[in-house]
Amino acid sequence: MTVDLTNVFQQIDGDYENLKELLREAVAIQSVSGDPSKRDETIRMVHWMKEKLEQIGTTCELADLGTQELEGKTIKLPPVLLGTLGNDKNKKTLLVYGHLDVQPAAKSDGWDTEPFELVEKDGKLFGRGSSDDKGPVLCWLHAIRAAQKNNIELPVNVKFCFEGMEESGSVGLPELLEREKNRFLAGVDFVCISDSYWLGTKKPCLTYGLRGICSFFVEVTGIKQDLHSGVFGGVIHEPLQDLMWVMSQLTTVDNRIKIPGLYEQVAPLSAAEEKTYDDIEFDVAEFRDSVGASHLPTEDKKTLLLRRWREPSLAFHGIEGAFYGPGEKTVIPSKVIGKFSIRIVPDMDPEDVNRRTIEYLNKVWAERGSPNVFKPRPGHSAKPWVVDVNDSNFLAGARAMKRVHGVEPDRIREGCSIPITLTFQELTGKSVLLLPLGAADDMAHSQNEKNNKWNYVEGVKTLLAYIMELGSA
Amino acid sequence: MTVDLTNVFQQIDGDYENLKELLREAVAIQSVSGDPSKRDETIRMVHWMKEKLEQIGTTCELADLGTQELEGKTIKLPPVLLGTLGNDKNKKTLLVYGHLDVQPAAKSDGWDTEPFELVEKDGKLFGRGSSDDKGPVLCWLHAIRAAQKNNIELPVNVKFCFEGMEESGSVGLPELLEREKNRFLAGVDFVCISDSYWLGTKKPCLTYGLRGICSFFVEVTGIKQDLHSGVFGGVIHEPLQDLMWVMSQLTTVDNRIKIPGLYEQVAPLSAAEEKTYDDIEFDVAEFRDSVGASHLPTEDKKTLLLRRWREPSLAFHGIEGAFYGPGEKTVIPSKVIGKFSIRIVPDMDPEDVNRRTIEYLNKVWAERGSPNVFKPRPGHSAKPWVVDVNDSNFLAGARAMKRVHGVEPDRIREGCSIPITLTFQELTGKSVLLLPLGAADDMAHSQNEKNNKWNYVEGVKTLLAYIMELGSA
Repeated sequence: MTVDLTNVFQQIDGDYENLKELLREAVAIQSVSGDPSKRDETIRMVHWMKEKLEQIGTTCELADLGTQELEGKTIKLPPVLLGTLGNDKNKKTLLVYGHLDVQPAAKSDGWDTEPFELVEKDGKLFGRGSSDDKGPVLCWLHAIRAAQKNNIELPVNVKFCFEGMEESGSVGLPELLEREKNRFLAGVDFVCISDSYWLGTKKPCLTYGLRGICSFFVEVTGIKQDLHSGVFGGVIHEPLQDLMWVMSQLTTVDNRIKIPGLYEQVAPLSAAEEKTYDDIEFDVAEFRDSVGASHLPTEDKKTLLLRRWREPSLAFHGIEGAFYGPGEKTVIPSKVIGKFSIRIVPDMDPEDVNRRTIEYLNKVWAERGSPNVFKPRPGHSAKPWVVDVNDSNFLAGARAMKRVHGVEPDRIREGCSIPITLTFQELTGKSVLLLPLGAADDMAHSQNEKNNKWNYVEGVKTLLAYIMELGSA
Repeated sequence: MTVDLTNVFQQIDGDYENLKELLREAVAIQSVSGDPSKRDETIRMVHWMKEKLEQIGTTCELADLGTQELEGKTIKLPPVLLGTLGNDKNKKTLLVYGHLDVQPAAKSDGWDTEPFELVEKDGKLFGRGSSDDKGPVLCWLHAIRAAQKNNIELPVNVKFCFEGMEESGSVGLPELLEREKNRFLAGVDFVCISDSYWLGTKKPCLTYGLRGICSFFVEVTGIKQDLHSGVFGGVIHEPLQDLMWVMSQLTTVDNRIKIPGLYEQVAPLSAAEEKTYDDIEFDVAEFRDSVGASHLPTEDKKTLLLRRWREPSLAFHGIEGAFYGPGEKTVIPSKVIGKFSIRIVPDMDPEDVNRRTIEYLNKVWAERGSPNVFKPRPGHSAKPWVVDVNDSNFLAGARAMKRVHGVEPDRIREGCSIPITLTFQELTGKSVLLLPLGAADDMAHSQNEKNNKWNYVEGVKTLLAYIMELGSA
């Protein structure tokens, strides 16, 4: 039996100002998990969401994760919000995951508006977290509220797991989930995460694969403090000079990785899998224009998607310890740390990638022949994730999207990593669906992050439809 | 006639607590000229010094330099303090230059103490500006005070030119001096600048040469905003990747410059000049240990000094626009600006160096073959400076040092640049003496800048002796 949602969807459309107001409140809370000075705000955000979940009848608890060391200080970790809505033994149980923390943002980074003030312009809702991931989290809330308002009984029990450390490596969460395996996670039948993006801006999709990641720190030092470049220039081995040379040996101009053995680990592409790429709606020119590039390393649709989803890639993030301000400073930095990361795919193993990368860095360093001190080390890592696109959870998601958007969603992978996906899959033994609501150009992690008004409202409908579809899953 | 200064020198020793108190006051004023938020403090520092000069009878004026654009704001430039002490037509006139502004400093940069609080420890006075250049500026004040207290008539008129923008390229000062050529600068017979360092920590020296500088900015962009490395990693040309590669092409591991034609411009070294290096007291092992290096590109005394003083060198300062914080941030920076500078020596010409460097960068970029946008440009530049070590001004300086320290000072060059030296020489047509008071390990521009108590006190005596020696110059 399919419940007709036409009227509810109309009500959701009409309720836009309220949906927006709640997002405005959430964006205004500066829950930047990576910034120790914003830790109180991050904790406040968890409490704010707890209150909202309680208003729809959820029984909530805050799981304490203890403390962490950050920039030399011991600070409290934000608690994880665990909620239970419904406990009907005759119903299956859906577990929803989302995160309440955000990436750093400052107007001076190049935002057109204040990042922590929600601003609507041309049908877009600008603000840090509007799309990643406060918007989608609120879509769950709005969807259930809409059902309750219309006395529609949910066909599943719903559990919530909302954390405040996703943008900082989900510190403490995997251990908590491990401890909760036989309590909070017991009886879960489906998991759904809405924390990724459509491939383009128009057509919905379901995500069946994520890349993993291996992060690296490359430290070079050799002089005991920063030096005046006039007095010491030319008569010492500069750590920054060594670091840039080493980093420049990692990739080709077209961004192919020079570390031996990495591409060889990639799972072979079967003809059947390759064929699935033919039908995916993806406009390379639109993608190129959206990033503002004049050319891309490849402009062939299939090759480009394969490189994003099922090949490793290496990206350079920056250098710690060197002069980074505007203008000139005639200093020779004494200790610099280069930051890069490698996205990994099946069948690559993080430990193997770490080993090969450190080995290659050490080999390159030996070729360099500098007397400076070289300390490469791996940072955090996460395994890639790929699943079956035809299980009942995925099919319910597909039906929901078709109901709202009128089209069959594409099945895609993502280039990024959501490590907790794999944790949920391993601990529950059940299907995890990634159900993205945002558009490809939402600019998560970047300046001018936004959520389209349309995606936000249709997102509420999609999640409601998905919950209802799970009744027949 | 030589005035006996024995008693005055003893008085100066006994006056240490007062000397220290004034330095404490000066260091506490955070006159960081490069930081727009500290501009008021920089201006306050000029006014503070004006009051001190007036207390010893100096007639002062503040020369307005107008405004500058800094980080997108129009802000007031600090005025230049011009002082005149004595106007006896029968005496020659000494012009003293110094600067009242300092480099940026924060405890979090790695200072052991608060940089703007003077801390005495083990005979060292730690604090930003203690050595560069507030300490030496105060030595002039104390020296004249000591003469006045003992009713010793100065044999010369003294003029002061103290600026507040030296650490930020002396914006506006050359133009002011040009305008003052026939007024304030008229009648000047000697110029003395105490804003450099001894070659080691024990033996005094006089400085007869300075390197010039050519600064460069290398901008690479090509995507319109920072991107998520998971979503976009592997399918774009990263500006930071290009930049590090280009920068790595500028030098060899031993810090030799790869830009063609630069070394060829260096003035030939005569046998006579080369011989002067034999007697210079310089301990390579001590120098190596003072910077904390395990090896240096050369450990031959003469070769090392030649590279510091009369060869060009290239130093890398940092990158603007990339991630510079601690920890991880999986971002692909969209616009990065590499900063480096080349120290230049006679007979190199800044415009020629700029042209050759930009040409080389463009050539290297063409080899790179990246579709990103490459914009190298020169920053500020300054010519090198070398003079005769046997004129009357230098000989007066040498006699003064011998009187205080009992040894003949070494004649040295400096690797760094004090562009205003050349301006004074050109506008007055007179000898400019660089008379350093600080030790080689004072760590100007770096963490834990200090002035030795001993150097500070002997500095007062040296400047007094120098002024007195000018009477017979």
